[in-house]
Formats: sequence, C-alpha cells, structure tokens
Amino acid sequence: MYVGIDVGGTNLKAGLVDEEGKLVRVERVPLDFQGPERFAETLAELSKKVIQGKVRWVGVGLPGAVDGGDVLFTTNIPMENVPLERLFRKHLDLPLLLGNDADCAAVGEFFGGAGKGTRDFAVVTLGTGVGAGIIVDGKLRGGLASSEAGHMVICQDGEPCNCGRKGCWERYASATGLIQQTKRAMEAHPESLLHEFARNGVEGRTAFQAAEAGDETALAVCRNYVGYLASGLASLINILRPEAVAIGGGVAAAPERLLLEPLREAVARESFSRHGGRVTKILPAELGNDAGIIGAALLGRVM
Amino acid sequence: MYVGIDVGGTNLKAGLVDEEGKLVRVERVPLDFQGPERFAETLAELSKKVIQGKVRWVGVGLPGAVDGGDVLFTTNIPMENVPLERLFRKHLDLPLLLGNDADCAAVGEFFGGAGKGTRDFAVVTLGTGVGAGIIVDGKLRGGLASSEAGHMVICQDGEPCNCGRKGCWERYASATGLIQQTKRAMEAHPESLLHEFARNGVEGRTAFQAAEAGDETALAVCRNYVGYLASGLASLINILRPEAVAIGGGVAAAPERLLLEPLREAVARESFSRHGGRVTKILPAELGNDAGIIGAALLGRVM
Repeated sequence: MYVGIDVGGTNLKAGLVDEEGKLVRVERVPLDFQGPERFAETLAELSKKVIQGKVRWVGVGLPGAVDGGDVLFTTNIPMENVPLERLFRKHLDLPLLLGNDADCAAVGEFFGGAGKGTRDFAVVTLGTGVGAGIIVDGKLRGGLASSEAGHMVICQDGEPCNCGRKGCWERYASATGLIQQTKRAMEAHPESLLHEFARNGVEGRTAFQAAEAGDETALAVCRNYVGYLASGLASLINILRPEAVAIGGGVAAAPERLLLEPLREAVARESFSRHGGRVTKILPAELGNDAGIIGAALLGRVM
Repeated sequence: MYVGIDVGGTNLKAGLVDEEGKLVRVERVPLDFQGPERFAETLAELSKKVIQGKVRWVGVGLPGAVDGGDVLFTTNIPMENVPLERLFRKHLDLPLLLGNDADCAAVGEFFGGAGKGTRDFAVVTLGTGVGAGIIVDGKLRGGLASSEAGHMVICQDGEPCNCGRKGCWERYASATGLIQQTKRAMEAHPESLLHEFARNGVEGRTAFQAAEAGDETALAVCRNYVGYLASGLASLINILRPEAVAIGGGVAAAPERLLLEPLREAVARESFSRHGGRVTKILPAELGNDAGIIGAALLGRVM
C-alpha cells in the first residue's frame, strides 16, 4: 500500500492507494500553512490518518518544483529550498517522495487511467496554467527534469507570460487564457449569448456552453481556442512522439464535439507522426481529481 | 567492435568503431541508388571492407524514419517501407540497426563528444533542416519515437513548411533559413558588405563572415537568426529539461561570440530551468562529420 497526498490551493487530500492503483480511503484537511516545520508535521499526521497495514512510502504532489526530498519552490505556498523529507521523517519514518502536481496527474493516469498499457505518455492539464507531465519509457520526467511544456512559445512576440517569455502556450491554452479570450469576445459582441451564460462570471466552460446553444461568437472563441491548444500539442507530439496524450483539467470536460474532435483533426494535420508509422492518440483524462492523489502515491514506481 | 555507416546525400561512409567509440578505419563509396536490394548489398559489401575481428552489429544512419529493421521512408533516396535488415542479412549475417541521421549524431556526441557524462542530452543539427536527436536517461528516442523537434511552430501563421505546418522552427533556424534571411537583407541593403562575402553564392556562414568584418546589416541578420534559434531551443529545453544540448551542423562553426554566446544568454533568459535548479548547458558539438558514423555504430547501446 502507498499514501498519496495532493497539496491543493485550499486543501490537503491524502489517500491510501493499493497495488492496483485503487484509492481505498481518503482524508482531507484545510491547507493552513504556518511554516515548513508545521507543514511537514501536518503531512505526517494526515498520512497516519489513512495508513492501514504496511505502507512503502508517502508521495506528495505539489504545485512547484522538487529535487529528491527537497522542495525547490511552491507557487501557492511560501516555500523555497525546504528539505521536506527530512522534516517529515521527524514525525513519521517513511520515505517521502515529492512530485510536481502535473507530473502526479500523469502518473495517476499512466497507472489507472488514460495511459494504461502505454510506455510513452503525457498528460496536459488545462487549468490556471498548462501543466504537462511526461512519461518516457515508463519513467517520469520528474524532479529536475520535470517538464515546463506550458512555457513553449507558440506565438513569437505574443502575450507576455510571468515566466519572462512572450507568447507561451499556457497564456493561450489554459483555462485562464480561454476566459480572457471569452471576455474579449463579449466586449466585441454585446449581442452574443455569452453574456447570458456569464451572468455569474466568465468561466472556462462559458464559451463551450454558449457554443452548445448555437451562439456564433462563442463558436468562434472555441474554434480559436482549440487552434491554440492544437498548436502547442502538435509541437509537443512532434518533439516527443508519445503513444498517447491525455487532456485533463476543468476545460477538458467540454463537449467532445467542440474540444477533442476538432483538436484531434488539427493535430493530425500538423503532427509529423503521420509520416512515421506512429499516430499519437489524444484522449480525455479519466481520473479527474483523483489522478493527483493516485499519482503521488505511485511516484516511486516511475522513478 | 561495431560498424557504423552514414548514408549521406552523395556518399556512403562506413567506419569500424571500437568499444571506446573511437573510429578505427573508414571506407567510402558513392551513393548510387539502384533499388533497395542492391542498396542492402552495397551496405553489406562496405561493411565487409571495414570489418576486422569480431563485430557485434552494423548500424546505419539515414535521413528519414525507421522502425526496427525497416526503413519507413528516406528523404533523399526513393525508399518506402523497405525491410532493410532482412535484405541486408542475405549478404551479411549480422544485426542491422537503423537510425535517423540526426539521432545518430546525438548518439555519437553522447558517447564520444559534447554529451559525455550526461544521461539526458540532445543534439540540434543546423543544416538543410533542423534535426534533433534526443537521449533520455541514457536511451535514444529513436525509431517511432524519433524526435521531429524541427517541426515545432515558433511563429504562429508563419512561413509555410513542407511538413504542412506554418512557422516551423526549421524554416527559421536551419542553414536554409539563415541563407534566406541573408538574401532578404542583401536585397534591402545594397550597401552591405554581405554582397562581397556572397560573391560565390550565399551560404550559411556568409552573414557571420560579414558580421565579423563589422557590417551592421550582417550583424542584424545574425542577431535575428540567433533569436529564432533561441526561441525553439528554449522551448525544447523547457519541455525536456536535459542536462546539456549540443549544437551541430555547418552553422555551428560560426564564431562563438556571434552564435553560442548570445544564444546562451537568450536561452538563459527564456528557460524555466533557472527556477528549478538545473541549468541546461549549451555546447558546440565536438565530433563534426564523424558523429554520424560513430553514433550509427553505437546505436545498439542506447536502444
């Protein structure tokens, strides 16, 4: 058995995961960050709550960069160069394995979801940013090699990104990018149904909902968005030539007809694999929010 | 001992390579393609010419795509879906290992050049196109997984590429792209020294030569070209986060001050690795034309 902990923006969720990658039980506590020492202790306490029987390690997925048992930095919690495993072991004597959250999602899908049966696999998560977790020959590109595919430039001299580049994929293909594109379309088209669907605020799904209702402006927003998503995805596929890529995150719940179908068509046109005998499958992620916990728990199997 | 054969545009070069990756002897014959059967026989004859002592396999690097012992297609020779190993073994009973030429260059540099001592390494070859060979955890992304990083889009809706995309990296960062950029600058600047250096035709080095002589137009061409090269390279590095990338091909012979130094600066600004503790080294390839033979010979060590 393994413990996986998903460090989210507001909660810590811990799960006990069995050898088959099944989530056996889950516990959660609010994320109340009061320094690395206390955080490590909370991880240990939460682990103890879910542990039953013999556990081989505790895996933790967090938004940021890791190196072995150290956290290099996290994006929503003020941690920098924290020896988290060392702090954790004061409270619970088990190996603590660390992973970036997008990487953990990829590991979860690899063992229990869309990546089952592959050796070369990636998950692209469309959320606040574009996260990518990459598995090559059954091993995760984790730690110092963790992918930052969201920061490939798809548009020279495009919109500034907070990474320092201009025109990064994630500025266009993230939920954040889609929301911005939707808002711009609403300003330009006061007659659009988008305004009705956005009564409680513009979300990632707003454009897809209005497009489903037949709104032309929304349809154009969706088409344009899929174009951005396809551009970076085709480049990623040309570079890595994986067997399959799964698309996860809130936006991935959009109707297949509006998202995955046109995405597959565009990528097929633009990917080199059509020449070379391997056509990369583009699939929906299957595990939803559980992917992070399951992937964190199974980190030790892909290292 | 191993045999490596480099299939070029005009010649076949075979070499005997020892356990240390050293080229012990070389033979070459003109490429006179008269069908797959005869081609396989030529490969066997050429191998026999260099073989001394016990040889474990013959490796062949060619411009195109391969899958196991089959050639899927080649770009300068009319082969498509040719079972080359099967044809070869009629004449010489040794395993025939196949690789794309950019991949073989990467393998050569990995064992005997700029990639020595790394596990995660890439070679970007600037020639007619932009070739990329990628080694992950000591294994080549070869065969069906062979990288087509030259076909990542760096410029949305940019110049059409014969792969079907628009704005591919190789349209801008290859020697071909540089020559085109140089010609355009010459048209716009009849006063430029470029015209003197191009008396025998514009080559990849023309802009660098005129820039060395202090020509402002040429300097601008070089700066602009390095910008394109850096854009794709930073994306590749953000996606893969290798330890080192070597730059090969004719253009890589340009003065370090004009090519590698500004390239390193631009990539350092744009690569995410600066956050994450791993700074990818950008190095000149070391083996020149021998990389292909040596890499082909050592293919079996990275599969």
